[in-house]
Formats: sequence, structure tokens, C-alpha cells
Amino acid sequence: MRLMEAIPNFSEGRRPEVVQAIAAPFRQTPAVFLLDEEMDPVHNRAVLTAVGEPEALRRACLAACRQAVALIDLNQHSGEHPRIGAADVIPFVPLMGTTHEEAVATARQLAEEIWQELAVPTYLYEDAARDPERRLLPAIRKGGFEALRDGAIREAGRRPDFGTDTVHPTAGATVVGARKPLVAFNVNLATTDLELGKRIARAVRESSGGLPRVRAMAVDMRESGRVQVSMNLTDTDVTPISVAYRFVEAAAAAEGVPVAESELIGLVGLAPLAAVAQDALKVGAMSAAQVLEMRLLSVLTGEKA
Amino acid sequence: MRLMEAIPNFSEGRRPEVVQAIAAPFRQTPAVFLLDEEMDPVHNRAVLTAVGEPEALRRACLAACRQAVALIDLNQHSGEHPRIGAADVIPFVPLMGTTHEEAVATARQLAEEIWQELAVPTYLYEDAARDPERRLLPAIRKGGFEALRDGAIREAGRRPDFGTDTVHPTAGATVVGARKPLVAFNVNLATTDLELGKRIARAVRESSGGLPRVRAMAVDMRESGRVQVSMNLTDTDVTPISVAYRFVEAAAAAEGVPVAESELIGLVGLAPLAAVAQDALKVGAMSAAQVLEMRLLSVLTGEKA
Repeated sequence: MRLMEAIPNFSEGRRPEVVQAIAAPFRQTPAVFLLDEEMDPVHNRAVLTAVGEPEALRRACLAACRQAVALIDLNQHSGEHPRIGAADVIPFVPLMGTTHEEAVATARQLAEEIWQELAVPTYLYEDAARDPERRLLPAIRKGGFEALRDGAIREAGRRPDFGTDTVHPTAGATVVGARKPLVAFNVNLATTDLELGKRIARAVRESSGGLPRVRAMAVDMRESGRVQVSMNLTDTDVTPISVAYRFVEAAAAAEGVPVAESELIGLVGLAPLAAVAQDALKVGAMSAAQVLEMRLLSVLTGEKA
Repeated sequence: MRLMEAIPNFSEGRRPEVVQAIAAPFRQTPAVFLLDEEMDPVHNRAVLTAVGEPEALRRACLAACRQAVALIDLNQHSGEHPRIGAADVIPFVPLMGTTHEEAVATARQLAEEIWQELAVPTYLYEDAARDPERRLLPAIRKGGFEALRDGAIREAGRRPDFGTDTVHPTAGATVVGARKPLVAFNVNLATTDLELGKRIARAVRESSGGLPRVRAMAVDMRESGRVQVSMNLTDTDVTPISVAYRFVEAAAAAEGVPVAESELIGLVGLAPLAAVAQDALKVGAMSAAQVLEMRLLSVLTGEKA
């Protein structure tokens, strides 16, 4: 079996029965597996993680969007998280046996189907974007559903990739894209000096000249007496977790501050984790097929190891 | 699904059709998965790695032994590797959802069945041994099939756990046991000084007062101009890979020799590998369920993550 991952975000975090209805296609579609479900009532948002054969996964996503369109009215929706759609954002990530290009193709096809079958305009983002200026989510979601509904969708540069210049009256618009696996990695420093954390975050992040494919910000963790350098590593083939860790560790050490501990947040792929072990042990060559559980996974999904 | 691993070793490494016949039950039994097959003509030996639901795995092992008994005559067998049986050694290792105690129970039950159904006497070893003096394989296999056949089986302390005081005329005897997952880990030092390697191997191994659950020896790697400290870590909960690595690295550094590189040999479990990453990054808490592939494996085998 060839596997791709989707992490669809829906604008519903308070009504469990609605989230269950949206998640149902991921449970019921053969060759698709729902790995994780998170509901957040403050953000009023649900994040699902599903894995499956690309074609089946795309069909399950479309069916889930159909439910979201039927059950969510963004005119009635409030929550802390920026959003423009009932089905808000759907990134695809390549896994075992699938390529990045296939993830891009899957995203573009789903975006077209959401428009044609559900009459919800769609935007392509990240690596699925057709215009480099449309890669980033914040620009697409600026002002949220309300801004698009009230006319922003007709502004130059904000027209959808699929659809006309009007949002769906209740379901808004949907952003679909493709990206590499992302690792959410926090390093907690044994200090309460937030300015130090900010300097290190600035030094490590790509946007201010740091490490490629690293986003970073400093977070004040008053309760634990720490400052956190919170990072998203968006391509660990380019900047591995170990490299980001050592950068932050060295920058803090230069100011006399040790690392207290780190945190890996959410689901992490085996490959970036194995790369950390390989680096720490100076292991010359190692393949994912050497990991017993990966071998089993390959056998179970019918891929040759 | 609850999973256990078996790594049965058979005394046939030259006739592929015989190894295929022996491996067939692992391919054909539902809820059992054959992960790896290795044939070595010099050792004249095959090593299979299979994973499955404990009951089904035990039945597949018994069926494979039946084939080995039918197809291998140890009186005609030659090879470098010590052996006493057509089915020579069968260790069970607990995996997802199974305990060490179950692996011991599975080993003891298989040992009884091999005697009762195939008339091959069996020995219990490692954690399945009923006598602490019978834990180690070299003692059980001393002198090989020929010694047992020629009367050693009747010596005090060498009587089988199941069976009478005669080997099976062609299939000899079989050793069955249970152990923790084993990690084969080599550290190659940038030196040609074999004595240095021997000193470090002696320092690190448990039998001469080093780290618990570590076996080690020095290997002269003339071709690459290195000396290798070759280790078996038999319980990485007790001595993790990182600890063994740092011990060898520090001992070599104390004599001015750096580590050139390391090697992880064969299949490695995700848990000991993740522990290395956790140590290297100072990650406070991490669960196997955070690894995406493990989550998928849990879903595929019907275990809740």
C-alpha cells in the first residue's frame, strides 16, 4: 500500500456529534485510517490526522468536507483561531511510497473537487500553490471568513484558485495544500530572561537569516520559570532536529544558559527521529527498513521492505 | 492485535528450497508475518524473523520445525556455526501488547509441543530456563549435535527439559527460549591498536564488571584500518544504546582515540532508537504513540494507540 497523510482542520470544536459526523468518512473508507482527532473548544476547531492510499484518502477528505459544509455555518461561528471555512485547511503530506509531487497533485485535485461538487471556493497553499506569493496561510486567511464574505475575495491577489468571487454563504472557502512532514520542537531554557529567548529565536529562524526551513518564536513559560524557543521544522531533510537543537543549545550556552529540556509536540515521523539517533551515535548508514516496526508496517501494508 | 516476535534458526543455509519449505508456515499462517529471511551458506544456517499474535506464531513455529525435522539430517550437515538441531534455536521476544512473561510461557509451551509432536528433545534457555545454570546457549550447545548424539545428552546437567536421554536420530535437539529485544551495536575506533579495543571491550562488558546487560568483544578490522568494539545490548531498558556509546567513546577518548563511526546491525526496535533521540535532545517525556508510524501500526493491528 502507498500511503499519504492528511491533516484536515475544521471549524468546529464544541459539538462532538458534528466532529464525529465529519470524521466518519475517515473511519469508513477502506484503505484509510484515522490516526488522531483533536477538538479544541476555545479555538472552536477540530484537527484530524488520517493516513491512507492517496486516492481513497482524497475521497474521504471530500466526503468529510461535504459533512462540514452541511453542518457548520461560519456566520454563527466564533473562536480564537483564524479561519475562512467550515473545512478550513487541508494539508497533504507524503509518507511511505508516495512522493511530494503526488501530494501536490492530490491537493490540487481535491481543491478542484471541493469547488465543483460542494460549491466552496478553494485556495492552494504551500507547495501546492501556483503562485509563490500564495504559499503562506496567513495571507490567504487575512481577516478570516468575515473579510472574504464582505468583499475581500474580489481584491487583486485574493481571488480563489477554484471558484468565483463569492464565498459559500455558510461554509466560506477552503485552503488545500501540500507540504513536507513538519516537526514541532520546543527547547526550554533554564532562564526567565524572555529577551534572551527572543534573540535566540531570531537567530535560529530562517526569516531573519538563521537555519533554513525553521520557524521560531520565544514563549514566556512563567509557571515553570523557563523561556521556550518554540520551533517548527518544515523540512528536516534540510535542517534536521539535531542541528536545530545544537544551534539553540550553543546560542544559549554562549550567554551562560543551559537547556532545561526539550519537547516534541504531536505526531513525529520515524525518519526525523531515527536521524537524531543516527547523528547521536555517529551511525554511518541506516535505513528505515532496519527498524522492526517499519518492517512490520511494510509487510502489513503490502509494501516490500 | 497483540504481537510477539520469534527468530528461529535452522541448520540449512545451502538448499533454498528447503529454507522456503521451512519458512512457508510463517507466510501462510493468518496473523503471522515473516519480516526477514537470511541464509548463510558458510554457516549452513538460516535465520527467520517473524512477528505475530502469540498463539498463531507458536503454531507457525511448530509447523516450521516439522518441516525442518522432515528435511534436514544433521548427520549429513556441516557448517561453521555451532548447532545441535535441525531446528536449532528459537527465541521469543515480546513486542507490542505482549509481556516478557508471555514470551516465557510461549517458549515453554512450544518446547513441550516440539517434544510431544515431533519427538525432538528440547532445552529451555535464557529467560525461559528453569535452572539458572541452563540460561546460556553455549553450554547447552557444547560439542554440537555430534556430542549429544554420542552420549553427552545423558550427562548430569545436560538432560533435556522435555524428552528422554536420546537425541532425535536426524533432527537432534532444539533450544527454545525467551529474551528481551537485543540490539547489535558496533563502535568503530579510529585506530589499528587491537589491544586498545580489547581493553575497552573488557571494560564495557558485564562479565568483567562493566555495564549491565552488555556483551562485548574487540574485532580487528584490518581492511578499514579500524578496531571495532562489537556489542550486544541484551536489555536496553537497563543499559540504553546511548549509555553504551558514551562509555566506549569516553574510554577511547581517554587514550586519545576518537570514534570513527558506529553500526546498528540487523533489525532494531523503535523503542531503543527513540530512547537515543530522546537522550540526545533532552526530551523530557515521549511516547511510542507519538511516532506516526507506530500510531498507524496500532491502528492497522487493531490496538488502540
